[in-house]
Amino acid sequence: MSKTDWRIGIAGLGTVGAGLLEFLAEKPGFSPTGGQAVVTGVSARSRTRPRPFDIAGLPWFDDPVELAKTPDNDIFVELIGGSDGPAKAAVEAALNAGKPVVTANKALLAHHGAELARLAETKGVPLLFEAAVMGGVPAVKIMREGLVGDDIRSVAGILNGTCNYILTEMEATGRAFADVLADAQRLGYAEADPTMDVGGFDAAHKITLLAALAFGCAPNFAAAEIEGIDQIDLMDIRLAKDLGYRVKLVASAERSADGVLVRVHPSLAPLDHPLAQAGGALNALFIEGQRIGRIFVQGPGAGAGPTAAAVAADIADVMTRSVRPVFQRPAADLKPFTPVDPSKSMGRAYLRFMVKDEPGVIAAVSETLAEAGVSIESFLQKPVEKADGVPIVLTTHAVAESVLMAAIERIANLSSVLARPRLLRIARI
Amino acid sequence: MSKTDWRIGIAGLGTVGAGLLEFLAEKPGFSPTGGQAVVTGVSARSRTRPRPFDIAGLPWFDDPVELAKTPDNDIFVELIGGSDGPAKAAVEAALNAGKPVVTANKALLAHHGAELARLAETKGVPLLFEAAVMGGVPAVKIMREGLVGDDIRSVAGILNGTCNYILTEMEATGRAFADVLADAQRLGYAEADPTMDVGGFDAAHKITLLAALAFGCAPNFAAAEIEGIDQIDLMDIRLAKDLGYRVKLVASAERSADGVLVRVHPSLAPLDHPLAQAGGALNALFIEGQRIGRIFVQGPGAGAGPTAAAVAADIADVMTRSVRPVFQRPAADLKPFTPVDPSKSMGRAYLRFMVKDEPGVIAAVSETLAEAGVSIESFLQKPVEKADGVPIVLTTHAVAESVLMAAIERIANLSSVLARPRLLRIARI
Repeated sequence: MSKTDWRIGIAGLGTVGAGLLEFLAEKPGFSPTGGQAVVTGVSARSRTRPRPFDIAGLPWFDDPVELAKTPDNDIFVELIGGSDGPAKAAVEAALNAGKPVVTANKALLAHHGAELARLAETKGVPLLFEAAVMGGVPAVKIMREGLVGDDIRSVAGILNGTCNYILTEMEATGRAFADVLADAQRLGYAEADPTMDVGGFDAAHKITLLAALAFGCAPNFAAAEIEGIDQIDLMDIRLAKDLGYRVKLVASAERSADGVLVRVHPSLAPLDHPLAQAGGALNALFIEGQRIGRIFVQGPGAGAGPTAAAVAADIADVMTRSVRPVFQRPAADLKPFTPVDPSKSMGRAYLRFMVKDEPGVIAAVSETLAEAGVSIESFLQKPVEKADGVPIVLTTHAVAESVLMAAIERIANLSSVLARPRLLRIARI
Repeated sequence: MSKTDWRIGIAGLGTVGAGLLEFLAEKPGFSPTGGQAVVTGVSARSRTRPRPFDIAGLPWFDDPVELAKTPDNDIFVELIGGSDGPAKAAVEAALNAGKPVVTANKALLAHHGAELARLAETKGVPLLFEAAVMGGVPAVKIMREGLVGDDIRSVAGILNGTCNYILTEMEATGRAFADVLADAQRLGYAEADPTMDVGGFDAAHKITLLAALAFGCAPNFAAAEIEGIDQIDLMDIRLAKDLGYRVKLVASAERSADGVLVRVHPSLAPLDHPLAQAGGALNALFIEGQRIGRIFVQGPGAGAGPTAAAVAADIADVMTRSVRPVFQRPAADLKPFTPVDPSKSMGRAYLRFMVKDEPGVIAAVSETLAEAGVSIESFLQKPVEKADGVPIVLTTHAVAESVLMAAIERIANLSSVLARPRLLRIARI
């Protein structure tokens, strides 16, 4: 083995791990620095599970921590997943051994990013995570390196392909959430336990990392406000469309004088907006900077091919021996994450009330909103088959979240209102 | 001055140069590596020309080559422009002195990229050019580093903001090319001599560089097929819209088994396509790779802010001391650029014929096309006020360029056809 060769240890052999093995077998000399990538060790939960790639010839490690520590490889690739447990132990072991780490693990970095960045930077080795956000779209590199000459104000987009697929299918086929989810699980687009995706947590991990890269603050998953798509009713997808909107799971991070607001919400995007037009499993992101203006990036957010390509790009970066801060600035200089009170944030909203079909209801709802200080932008009443009562839907002008919540409480208490009002935010994009 | 400070020499103080001075004055410590950027020398054609930024306190060099060579700076930034002359001389001088170079000069690299890459790599110093393509969108970094784990098949997009602005204005206001161009010149969106932009040459420089990054071949500007927007008639913008398309100046580079095809053409994009929706001075790019699928990026393609931010990102890269090949792979390994004969390429087309308003014309045109082997997809005849004759417009199914050209020749010779048929390509996107 010549000295320019790089020995790679890979822990975790699911979809991405198998894709990476395939990639490295096809293109061992992919790096522009001239070195060959040689897989010198693998680890996974099961050695014998059927895989698209034969691992019989590769040195096997039962324990990923051992693989991370062994001097027999130069780069440790962590594709195990999970915010704690073996993934965290192995990444820490590799960094402690002074070994560069490449990971696709958004949960790990969203929870422990600042601490791991400090460890990596103390040891002087790179910790790279391109594959953690937007699959093959180099969103992390764009934020960390490409936009380092700007002050970023906000990032917002669609970061979870599974949710986007489900919402797209619900609208296209007119089927309910549970039906489409079951299909997605059968097709392998959703996990057996879909909570991480449909609960909005995966998108929240990713926007937490983008916020850290954008604003130079420590990742703070606990500060993210999270709502998933599991409560989305087909009726809202249809009524929103009647009002000129499409429902998307939008993850956003905004910086203001008060601090940073990180949120994941099912949100309405105007039908002609690029976010509304990013269908299926696509990911899409707007980045707004003081100097660069608005940049938009879009691409497949998951899958073995794109994600393995992103891991390979990180491996190539390690081979150049360049070492940059893990997030936007050195770990020791990361600003504390100051969360903004979301109740003070301003925004437009979509509200649906199921009401009794009787005279005076519209008047009661609109008077209550007016008294609460919520100004109506558009209004739609439309009979819906098989529904309990009649839906009234409306969009509001920009209003403080606390005012909106108080108004919803008052309306929920009206005798003509049959169920808890449904709130969807209109994306600020 | 502490040893982590970086001394910057800047040659060329036009819009981008002034923007960079402003940026470095505001954020001298922008780099995540901890060094301060200090401007230790400037050079421009005129020392006294009014500028938005006062340069009186900065060391002045009459000759950019002297600025490039002086040991008093560590990084040379070339913002002079032009493929030869002082820009080339200064970049060569800096590289020969073993000094990292950052440039926004697409013409220089499109013409002399392989030779300059060889020089930079021999000297072991970076030659970076993020600001040369798509302004603040880090398209070069995406291609060179972010997608290095993939095999790129094609790149295609809108790379010249001036042309995009003019086309957008023509459609929106119904004014002719010359009128809108004159306005754009008055507003500073177009140069006094607009040939570089409206002739398609600027877009061709940029797509030449993207092709080199995408396919690992030496940049070869001479091989680009170039058509600008200076012959675009308002009538075609309107008729194309009737057929569901918008006219855009599309630059594309495609790789096939035979070689690489690099083209810049006014082209038709379907109205609901992201390229059709990128209006005004926006730039937009599709990148298609074997593993990553299709990635789309969009943002402001020019202006002092975005471009200065891109230059600053390159300066930050230099500060990390990472040295990568200038294009996709080491200069010595760049593949020779093998151009594909464009006459063999297949594509759909929009054709407009001005004909005499007399019986049998449609039959004559459509028979001639059929005999030549061109199959019609859609057809529109529509009277147009103040036009010489009546326009017939049609779109074809995919056809070899040589067959299409032969058919156009035959139709041009029909007695009922009044003027040379107008051909616009339908973008393959």
